[in-house]
Amino acid sequence: MSEKNILAEAFKKTHFKVSGHGPRNIQVLKEAFMNIEGELESELYGKGQVIDDFQTKMAKYLGKESAVFFPSGTMAQQIALRIWCDHKGINKVAYHPLSHLEIHEEDGFKKLHHIESILLADKESVIQLEDVVGLEEEIACLLLELPQREIGGQLPEYKALEDISAYCKEKGIKLHLDGARLFEILPYYQKSAVEVCALFDSVYVSFYKGIGGIAGAILAGDQAFTEESKIWKRRHGGDLISLYPYIVSADYYFNQRINNMNQYYEEAKEYARYYNQCHSVSTKPLEPVTNMFHVHFDASKEEMELIFASIYEETGIGLTSYVREVTKTTSNFEVSIGDLYSQVPKEELSNAFKLLDEKMKAIR
Amino acid sequence: MSEKNILAEAFKKTHFKVSGHGPRNIQVLKEAFMNIEGELESELYGKGQVIDDFQTKMAKYLGKESAVFFPSGTMAQQIALRIWCDHKGINKVAYHPLSHLEIHEEDGFKKLHHIESILLADKESVIQLEDVVGLEEEIACLLLELPQREIGGQLPEYKALEDISAYCKEKGIKLHLDGARLFEILPYYQKSAVEVCALFDSVYVSFYKGIGGIAGAILAGDQAFTEESKIWKRRHGGDLISLYPYIVSADYYFNQRINNMNQYYEEAKEYARYYNQCHSVSTKPLEPVTNMFHVHFDASKEEMELIFASIYEETGIGLTSYVREVTKTTSNFEVSIGDLYSQVPKEELSNAFKLLDEKMKAIR
Repeated sequence: MSEKNILAEAFKKTHFKVSGHGPRNIQVLKEAFMNIEGELESELYGKGQVIDDFQTKMAKYLGKESAVFFPSGTMAQQIALRIWCDHKGINKVAYHPLSHLEIHEEDGFKKLHHIESILLADKESVIQLEDVVGLEEEIACLLLELPQREIGGQLPEYKALEDISAYCKEKGIKLHLDGARLFEILPYYQKSAVEVCALFDSVYVSFYKGIGGIAGAILAGDQAFTEESKIWKRRHGGDLISLYPYIVSADYYFNQRINNMNQYYEEAKEYARYYNQCHSVSTKPLEPVTNMFHVHFDASKEEMELIFASIYEETGIGLTSYVREVTKTTSNFEVSIGDLYSQVPKEELSNAFKLLDEKMKAIR
Repeated sequence: MSEKNILAEAFKKTHFKVSGHGPRNIQVLKEAFMNIEGELESELYGKGQVIDDFQTKMAKYLGKESAVFFPSGTMAQQIALRIWCDHKGINKVAYHPLSHLEIHEEDGFKKLHHIESILLADKESVIQLEDVVGLEEEIACLLLELPQREIGGQLPEYKALEDISAYCKEKGIKLHLDGARLFEILPYYQKSAVEVCALFDSVYVSFYKGIGGIAGAILAGDQAFTEESKIWKRRHGGDLISLYPYIVSADYYFNQRINNMNQYYEEAKEYARYYNQCHSVSTKPLEPVTNMFHVHFDASKEEMELIFASIYEETGIGLTSYVREVTKTTSNFEVSIGDLYSQVPKEELSNAFKLLDEKMKAIR
């Protein structure tokens, strides 16, 4: 068995998992549909009560004129950028070097939409006004991802967002929000979704991060924009005859968890402190600004896998199922706090961190 | 209330619907998941037991090396054509003028993949060998839709398929099967799916036509082809974290209905005879070759809506929920036979057709 499997196997056997909402299994679907009447009719190719109601609800929640349900954010965001590029007649957009579009989509929007990307800010920082002002080429659209997931979920100050928004408006640059984790940032900013979204021309949100649904996304903006997005949704092969398995579950878990975001955020800060008290361990950001953060180790992936596996066996507490190599001697993993955190006995959690601290000291 | 609504409303109130498998409602999902253990884990971005097992099963059923599950046929087929065009370095494909790609996808594959289409055969006929031989331009791929849905579900003779396949092989033209209704054509050809698919380089099948699932498609071919298709699936935004709602239901209804295709075919022939015995009514094809056919009337849409609505009220038998205008004085609708047909009492069905015949004579 490889060391990766040793960790994953040890994780599976733990009594308490600290991150997330629980297993991504079929119970997630069964629970969402338990109280839905079988007679409720499927929508048909984007038309019908189930999809209309949810789109209307999300448009209102986000403070936008209109909203469209998509099977994925990958599809929704490519389409948003394409529409803004077509409107301006410029096939250029700007975003962060670690944007989902740049690193997780096999260059879909370049291969399918022939849009060129300009990377703003260095990898370790979030985009600031000066990055946008410093742009030498004309762009159709700027995409901001809030929080910037690949660097632990960092956020610019709200004032910076307001300034960027005002600057883009002045320059005729459309501002698009990659809000895969929009719900999760609201407690830190102390703003409503409507207030944040008002800074953007178009907004994408996801339902299987903090909300914990099965899959699916909403793209919101003005009516003309969302109508155009529906045509592209069909072109992409995303206008399924029935998207209700995702819509019904998105709605169910939205209702269940939308008011928990502050709790997850507070718990993330507490949980990060446990890590930061350990030798050769630190979190990024040091104090989380959402329910997520990254945990970094001055130790190799292989060392950390053995350490975690032994902690799990001793304590029954599962901290992570994997560790990623950063360099030969450093490693990290991602935390997203969800429903499970509050179920973990604090004493046992403290014990796990005592062990982690000891074991880290023992190797460095 | 418009006349369209009169017909749709009258249809809703009937005791027996003749076409299809029953309502497209949430019970379709609930039934498929009733006996699935909640602990079964979701696949993750195309990897995991649920998707692996079904892909392996379908590859075997279709006699192809490998198969990939897609959220939609629109996505799967664009990708198949794109791959074959890339391989050959020619952005040209040929298909029927009423192909799904030409009339139902908002020109997705032209707008996203910049592929040019050459239309073969006239609208009312299926593609024959001479159409392919007569091609003046070089193409990367020929797409055949079996049966040709938009003309009532017609099929070429099997010999013609074999000849086209041999010709394409000789000329280095890839042959792709739009098999949205592949399962439904096997009884007429008296061939297995493996035998039919052996004539094609790539095959798409759907799970919400004769199979009656929720949505979803399989694209099958050799390993190199399907691996490439997975990259494009991600680019299109179709590589969802969880496609299991569609996969589990596709598998469930595949198992339930795959052996009913001969029954549906025989019933379609019987049902078409009822129509063809009526004045000013005929089916296309005259004798169905699958579970589907179109019913044509020498009467306007509005006339037929009133006639059908009155028949439903008198008999409680629902023949169709809509009628489409063809010309000002002709109209039609589509029939797909499924589970419901065998539940309709034959005497009451005969009565409905007696009425239809009388009413047609009364207006012409």
